[in-house]
Amino acid sequence: MAEKAVVLLSGGLDSVTCLAAAKKENFEIHALCFDYGQRHQIEIECARRSAAAIGVEKFHLIRFDLRMWGASALTSDDLDVPEFDAERKEVPVTYVPARNMIFLSFGAALAEGIGAKDIYIGVNSLDYSGYPDCRPGFIDAFRKCANLGTKAVDENWEFQIRTPLQYLKKSEIIQLGLSLGVDYSLTHSCYNPLPDGRPCGHCDSCGLRNRAFAELGMTDPALERKITL
Amino acid sequence: MAEKAVVLLSGGLDSVTCLAAAKKENFEIHALCFDYGQRHQIEIECARRSAAAIGVEKFHLIRFDLRMWGASALTSDDLDVPEFDAERKEVPVTYVPARNMIFLSFGAALAEGIGAKDIYIGVNSLDYSGYPDCRPGFIDAFRKCANLGTKAVDENWEFQIRTPLQYLKKSEIIQLGLSLGVDYSLTHSCYNPLPDGRPCGHCDSCGLRNRAFAELGMTDPALERKITL
Repeated sequence: MAEKAVVLLSGGLDSVTCLAAAKKENFEIHALCFDYGQRHQIEIECARRSAAAIGVEKFHLIRFDLRMWGASALTSDDLDVPEFDAERKEVPVTYVPARNMIFLSFGAALAEGIGAKDIYIGVNSLDYSGYPDCRPGFIDAFRKCANLGTKAVDENWEFQIRTPLQYLKKSEIIQLGLSLGVDYSLTHSCYNPLPDGRPCGHCDSCGLRNRAFAELGMTDPALERKITL
Repeated sequence: MAEKAVVLLSGGLDSVTCLAAAKKENFEIHALCFDYGQRHQIEIECARRSAAAIGVEKFHLIRFDLRMWGASALTSDDLDVPEFDAERKEVPVTYVPARNMIFLSFGAALAEGIGAKDIYIGVNSLDYSGYPDCRPGFIDAFRKCANLGTKAVDENWEFQIRTPLQYLKKSEIIQLGLSLGVDYSLTHSCYNPLPDGRPCGHCDSCGLRNRAFAELGMTDPALERKITL
């Protein structure tokens, strides 16, 4: 019987590639997706379609409302999503406080509940928006925390946090995904999509994605895909 | 202006005492309560009443559904709540996978969102059910994780996780609370309450609570309180 793995899945380019990488390892996949009140809810539909295309044992959707305190352009309509700025040094306003810590904690809960020891997350710290919760130091600290705050510590086993994209350039992530058969027309990365679901073309996430496809001499297959919720 | 603090509040004896301890430090309190599909939902009403009695700036209630994967007697009707067993060595079935990690992650998110650096949690590792996520090693690992996975690391400040009850006996917790004016008739600890909200008297949580009140020669003022939802 295949080992189980939990894959955090947003429906974006990175997490869908991460799902394909986990699938390649022959895990029985439990995809875990989050509806947290994000501006780009359309990514959830992309997560569903990508999970179905790649093949998962189960697609879990957890709902909670981070709009309760906002504090991010992704969870508050009072803050605008800024334009792509490759030179920006500070953490941008699209950063959602403690988001990956929340996501990974639910991932550990699901993993412990179903008997999985591997948790995949598509974080990347090269072509990224500068979010602290995407960096390897945080991931390692979370691994230690999860292994002390669950039955792992009493039962003498360990969670592994798998980050196959951590040190890849965005264009390398796309090349990896293409080699694994990922259909990028089913993915959504834009922080601030148009009403018909097409990407805005101007935010950090669009900027990083567009630059990577351009480096590869390709047109992003998601550019003209329309999804309304 | 008072510094802000986030207090994780379940409505139980420990977390309400912890709230009173935070209040004593003159923080502006943001109470954070969770409706996660727990068997003892009545505790949420007790959290509300206790927050109102002690005085908080805001009571935040986050909802999500841990019944999706169950795996605990508190989040599944397929598992029975066991009787109190003071000699039990293993982690009991009432343990909810990664619960405090999830709660603390939301706590860090709220704290970062509102500009608080202090997060209170009423964990205790003396008179407790043996849950791994109540022990000091986990709390310290979480603190490190939170300080690497949020803007704290970029902005050069630190979260503190405050655990004023960590090394107190249950009876000492009650004495502390009484000295701070806590009304324990407003608290609820039982894992498996009767339909009218009274405690079952038999679960671990009732066992620990009853033993502590008995040690103090007191009758638990919550024994006859009825609340229906």
